[in-house]
Amino acid sequence: MDIYKAGKTLVCTSRVPGLKYTQFRILLNKKGAKVVATDPVGVREGNWVFTASGSAARYATGDFEVQTDLTIAGIIDNWQE
Amino acid sequence: MDIYKAGKTLVCTSRVPGLKYTQFRILLNKKGAKVVATDPVGVREGNWVFTASGSAARYATGDFEVQTDLTIAGIIDNWQE
Amino acid sequence: MDIYKAGKTLVCTSRVPGLKYTQFRILLNKKGAKVVATDPVGVREGNWVFTASGSAARYATGDFEVQTDLTIAGIIDNWQE
Amino acid sequence: MDIYKAGKTLVCTSRVPGLKYTQFRILLNKKGAKVVATDPVGVREGNWVFTASGSAARYATGDFEVQTDLTIAGIIDNWQE
Amino acid sequence: MDIYKAGKTLVCTSRVPGLKYTQFRILLNKKGAKVVATDPVGVREGNWVFTASGSAARYATGDFEVQTDLTIAGIIDNWQE
Repeated sequence: MDIYKAGKTLVCTSRVPGLKYTQFRILLNKKGAKVVATDPVGVREGNWVFTASGSAARYATGDFEVQTDLTIAGIIDNWQE
Repeated sequence: MDIYKAGKTLVCTSRVPGLKYTQFRILLNKKGAKVVATDPVGVREGNWVFTASGSAARYATGDFEVQTDLTIAGIIDNWQE
Repeated sequence: MDIYKAGKTLVCTSRVPGLKYTQFRILLNKKGAKVVATDPVGVREGNWVFTASGSAARYATGDFEVQTDLTIAGIIDNWQE
Repeated sequence: MDIYKAGKTLVCTSRVPGLKYTQFRILLNKKGAKVVATDPVGVREGNWVFTASGSAARYATGDFEVQTDLTIAGIIDNWQE
Repeated sequence: MDIYKAGKTLVCTSRVPGLKYTQFRILLNKKGAKVVATDPVGVREGNWVFTASGSAARYATGDFEVQTDLTIAGIIDNWQE
């Protein structure tokens, strides 16, 4: 599971039906590269989080049919960069 | 889920049967590297998109049997590079 | 799905039973790195191809039980490097 | 399976329900990059371990429903860095 | 499927039950980076091999329940580095 800093939410009107009403958030890794993750935890910008990828990402949304490959799994307490 | 800029469509006459009549599109990442994705959303060249990979890519085409490992999942509204 | 240039076939006498009588081909990426893929399409050396990875690679061979993680999915028409 | 050096445990109060009461540990690769893994083996800080990723990570926790993508699979005896 | 040079076997007393009595081998890629793979083929140190990753790695051991993500799938005949 990888560690990211939560960035802004992502607005995405046109999407495949399988993503349903999922909320997306931009995540930044240590080098500043950006990825997109579904967020079932409810993070805030600036939180440090870790993610589940692959098929675990679908389970982690609480709905196996959500077609994501990256989901925020938890917020890390007291993380020093 | 990764972020790409949509490039041209890809013409591919000789293919495995499992890809059916799927449309392919070339995607470019920030560094200009190219990958190929199936496109159930209907993007245009120059759109910024995010993708689902792995088994989620098959679900995202709307037909689990399409043998892809990367599918465009949505178009990002108002993306600044 | 990634883009590769087809190289030579790979001779491999000693293999796990699950690979059956599959034909293997060496593929080269843009930087010259080599990977091995199963080839259900019948490519020739020098063709530009794209590949399916992960569980899609097994489906793409036409036999889900073939234990590969990379399969050539199609030949690209008119590719300029 | 990749080789890592075990770091500290990770405190994570807010998490998805599917992670249950799993213990997390920070792992460091040779270059010092950090990832998070579930730990069913009971490692100590400083141990050298190898990990299972993907769907194997879920099986390796002993509970397929734990939503992880990286699990410590074993401690390496007598590892020289 | 990736190409590696077989290194030494790996001694690993403390492991998850799902790995059973599997034999592990260290593999080196072209740059010398090390990974760990299960070996159902019976390779010798110095052999050039290719590997199956992901869920194919579990099938390739001959026992789907072995919790590995990388398995040696075959020995390459006459490989020039």
